[in-house]
Amino acid sequence: MSWEENVRKTVPYVPGEQPKIENIIKLNTNENPYPPAPGVQKALEELKEGYDILRKYPAPACDILEEVLSDYYGLPREQLFVGVGSDDVLSMAFLAFFHGEKPVLFPDITYSFYDVWAEVYGIPYKTVPLTGEFEINADDYDIPNGGIVIANPNAPTGIAKPGEWMDEFISRHRDVVVIVDEAYVDFGGETCIPLIEKYDNLLVTQTFSKSRSLAGLRIGMAFGSRKLIGYLKDVKFSVNSYTMNTPSLVLGRESVLDEAYFREKVDAVIKTREWTKKELKELGFTMTESSTNFLFVSHPQKNAEEIMKRLRDEGIIVRHFKKPRIDNYLRISIGTDEEMKKLVSVLKNIL
Amino acid sequence: MSWEENVRKTVPYVPGEQPKIENIIKLNTNENPYPPAPGVQKALEELKEGYDILRKYPAPACDILEEVLSDYYGLPREQLFVGVGSDDVLSMAFLAFFHGEKPVLFPDITYSFYDVWAEVYGIPYKTVPLTGEFEINADDYDIPNGGIVIANPNAPTGIAKPGEWMDEFISRHRDVVVIVDEAYVDFGGETCIPLIEKYDNLLVTQTFSKSRSLAGLRIGMAFGSRKLIGYLKDVKFSVNSYTMNTPSLVLGRESVLDEAYFREKVDAVIKTREWTKKELKELGFTMTESSTNFLFVSHPQKNAEEIMKRLRDEGIIVRHFKKPRIDNYLRISIGTDEEMKKLVSVLKNIL
Repeated sequence: MSWEENVRKTVPYVPGEQPKIENIIKLNTNENPYPPAPGVQKALEELKEGYDILRKYPAPACDILEEVLSDYYGLPREQLFVGVGSDDVLSMAFLAFFHGEKPVLFPDITYSFYDVWAEVYGIPYKTVPLTGEFEINADDYDIPNGGIVIANPNAPTGIAKPGEWMDEFISRHRDVVVIVDEAYVDFGGETCIPLIEKYDNLLVTQTFSKSRSLAGLRIGMAFGSRKLIGYLKDVKFSVNSYTMNTPSLVLGRESVLDEAYFREKVDAVIKTREWTKKELKELGFTMTESSTNFLFVSHPQKNAEEIMKRLRDEGIIVRHFKKPRIDNYLRISIGTDEEMKKLVSVLKNIL
Repeated sequence: MSWEENVRKTVPYVPGEQPKIENIIKLNTNENPYPPAPGVQKALEELKEGYDILRKYPAPACDILEEVLSDYYGLPREQLFVGVGSDDVLSMAFLAFFHGEKPVLFPDITYSFYDVWAEVYGIPYKTVPLTGEFEINADDYDIPNGGIVIANPNAPTGIAKPGEWMDEFISRHRDVVVIVDEAYVDFGGETCIPLIEKYDNLLVTQTFSKSRSLAGLRIGMAFGSRKLIGYLKDVKFSVNSYTMNTPSLVLGRESVLDEAYFREKVDAVIKTREWTKKELKELGFTMTESSTNFLFVSHPQKNAEEIMKRLRDEGIIVRHFKKPRIDNYLRISIGTDEEMKKLVSVLKNIL
């Protein structure tokens, strides 16, 4: 026998490129174009002064961060969970909640990590096709299942379902855990957090990576009933007691404390998105109705992959998915006004 | 059916306490009493100045850190892996390499996270008793198995096996992955890293948490054959693309670059350990031969748990494991000279 026979072989998720080229306009990973809250810089000064603290383990329960999140969301800490980006939170949730025989359901076009987690943890799953307009049809989920995952707003389509629709949808699935991935919710979606009081089987996840300009810190969070969060923490502390490092805890805290800055920058991104939408429509692009910090666009006369390559030649990186149904679309993150003006002018030349 | 039926229910690992009390002498989690390398402070200043970088995702491949580790260990990056503490590295390794039917073997007295990972991932396992002197008997592992995990030096016993012994041991187990957990190796153990060229089924793990005074950053690493590390990275990138946040990468790098400081502080800990050993022996303590930054001690006249409680009343925290065979032992981390002098003087009063 060879040791290789016992190896779990998987095909990993491939994230958007982090290019090392200077002066590139990076619109491929939905990062925020604005810096994190100024308090983050202040906290870095304090961390520098008191850097001896790094020799100690962080508090496993993530007190520093959970306490401000508890205040911010008006929820007890027993209904909060934090992890290394919402990827870590979602991965732990898949491991914790999808331990049955029936397939977990999620749309065929959605965040492409869901099937990777299902594969790595050996979870049966089934994708449910979106409609021709990339909409979720609730009735399609009325089949035997072991759980449901919905990104709302969805990615890479950017389309959001209203809270009322989500409420009705979750009410139909009380016997399995329903995960609502709200990575992009701050840019125009309606959060399901209020529904966790109504549905003890609902887990809502969010992230600091997009709206809080802190992708580099890796902070994600989840909200749910005490029971649900309790199970999730048991699994988390069975995998790693100290996932959140000290910089994440002390810097992440500052972001939560500065609500005015947060709102200001989210509003700026939304304003730029609406301007970009108008300009791209004038160039003949069709697109979904985005409630996120990206646009999902297609051009009737020009192949998406070709546009992507031409943009790259001009120093602008956008995301193209070589996948059925969406391979003639581009996902374009919203940058600063200047970056988007440059994008529009380069696209004018390409078309 | 209730959603709870599909939940993976686990009993998590309980790490040593991180008390919030001021002025405590903390000898319970094997942290280093000395600050991290001065370069870490300098890098924090740079991170403060350029804090805008935090809005971007870190490089998934951890380039900044892997590059210096590659130089330091003289190994190509394809033979290196980094994770969120060696807990993350080990957890990923359990998930990746122990995907068979036969039980994974590890000592009955060792790092108490091994059985927790086996439980959470549904891996069959069997503990192999150490001898009466807390030694590993190689022959006991000559039974059908799906993998082996050895902490060397072992914890909480502190006992190290020489490289030659390990070489012979691994040579007997070529058909399964053998993990050697070297969390404490820098304090007197002999590393198995050179053996990865000989055994493509050997994974060696280490950490920045003890000898590099960076428990607060959560950095661990693994070394192995290209094939082994390739499989491990596939699993890691199937769980989370960006586990290592930007502060971990840029600050961790500085620690690796300052070899003189590293050696100086490791030597200081060893010197203090030897002094403490002598003093505790004079107080009647028996102990194992520690090659780590802690001592594993017992007193023939006084109950360990009672000593632990009395020490706590005096503001000194040490670790006691309520477990068969070792419940009359204490694990005492090595602090500064001043802290250990205080410990000895308080123990004199207790006894």
